[in-house]
Amino acid sequence: MIIGLAQHLKENYGITIKNMDYYDAAFTHKSYVNEHPKEKLDYYERTEFLGDAVMQLCVSEYLFKRFPEMPEGKLSRLRAAMVCEDSFSKFAKECHFDEFIRLGKGEEKNNARQRPSLLCDIFEAFIGALYLDQGKPTVVKFISEVVFPKLDMGWFNTFFDHKTALQEYLQKDGQCDIQYQEIWSKGPDNDRTYKMKVLYNGNEIGEGIGHTKKAAEQAAAFEALKKFQVK
Amino acid sequence: MIIGLAQHLKENYGITIKNMDYYDAAFTHKSYVNEHPKEKLDYYERTEFLGDAVMQLCVSEYLFKRFPEMPEGKLSRLRAAMVCEDSFSKFAKECHFDEFIRLGKGEEKNNARQRPSLLCDIFEAFIGALYLDQGKPTVVKFISEVVFPKLDMGWFNTFFDHKTALQEYLQKDGQCDIQYQEIWSKGPDNDRTYKMKVLYNGNEIGEGIGHTKKAAEQAAAFEALKKFQVK
Repeated sequence: MIIGLAQHLKENYGITIKNMDYYDAAFTHKSYVNEHPKEKLDYYERTEFLGDAVMQLCVSEYLFKRFPEMPEGKLSRLRAAMVCEDSFSKFAKECHFDEFIRLGKGEEKNNARQRPSLLCDIFEAFIGALYLDQGKPTVVKFISEVVFPKLDMGWFNTFFDHKTALQEYLQKDGQCDIQYQEIWSKGPDNDRTYKMKVLYNGNEIGEGIGHTKKAAEQAAAFEALKKFQVK
Repeated sequence: MIIGLAQHLKENYGITIKNMDYYDAAFTHKSYVNEHPKEKLDYYERTEFLGDAVMQLCVSEYLFKRFPEMPEGKLSRLRAAMVCEDSFSKFAKECHFDEFIRLGKGEEKNNARQRPSLLCDIFEAFIGALYLDQGKPTVVKFISEVVFPKLDMGWFNTFFDHKTALQEYLQKDGQCDIQYQEIWSKGPDNDRTYKMKVLYNGNEIGEGIGHTKKAAEQAAAFEALKKFQVK
């Protein structure tokens, strides 16, 4: 059994595991199974196969409903940015899933525990296990806490240009003055967080947080657009 | 409104539509919308985006549960064979969905109504509409009637070799006599159906139907394997 995982999920995500077998498989690499042939263990690949499809649907459904006017091409590109190795490996790290992976000794030496492709697989496998154990509503609740907020934190902002959209919206009745100002920034240099505000003719119309100033500005512009009911 | 569709779905699949808007969009091509600008119509692409993900999950879940011993690589290849343009366009034709598509005049002349890529899109869009209108259980019920039986009818048999599996299973205790015989065949040359049986030491142990003799034999071998609880 994966030690500490049940408590970790309970304390941080309010998840009470019903069947630990799913999670044991989801966090076990083939190399560990090969080193422990007597234990008849299962490894993560089948659960990952399912979890991948669960994530595709949950993210698709969220984007479809949140952006009722967005054309299919843009939805697909945004989904591809969210459902990818880069994102999933970051989610896995954020959830401390790397600490629970059962790896063979050779893979451990090769630093597989920090390899983005493995972290991505484990995140998908966890989603598959959660789906089998608890059903879709719990998966949606989990990714509503872990994945969807990243959209407003600017993680996928290369797919939006809210600043341009806000400018176009406010300028439709003629010239206007739009400015962005820092409210605060904090954290170490390699993991800094910024909070920015956007001013329209001197009045604050939105605030946003991001890991770069530009991302925080995009988030602030997005908040303003929501106020104007453009988004 | 798409004329006749509600009755078609009710009579053939027991589906009682709640919100026709989803289906109107799912069966409408952009070219038709462009020709009817005053009607403010929606077209199928967004619903297709969602339906694609719904199909991925439903098929993944079905395969995952039906083949509890199948490794991930094989599951992925089988899913890819089922969730593809070739399959979906055939399902769309079988469900007579081609008859309900709203097309612009130019596309109609180009015979888009019979184009596999469009038929595939429409099938996915219909699944998306059904999911939005009725939820996942109704989608699963629908594809349990339309899609999953094709697995036992040999549509995806290039991914299995049940005949070899049966032979290996029966030969494990020594030599044996396995024979395949035709029970009947019917239909026109370009759409012929075969029913084959498999005999083990002279006794029938399975029957199967397919569009080729080989596919019917594979289906018969698959039935026999199920009897022996190998599958």
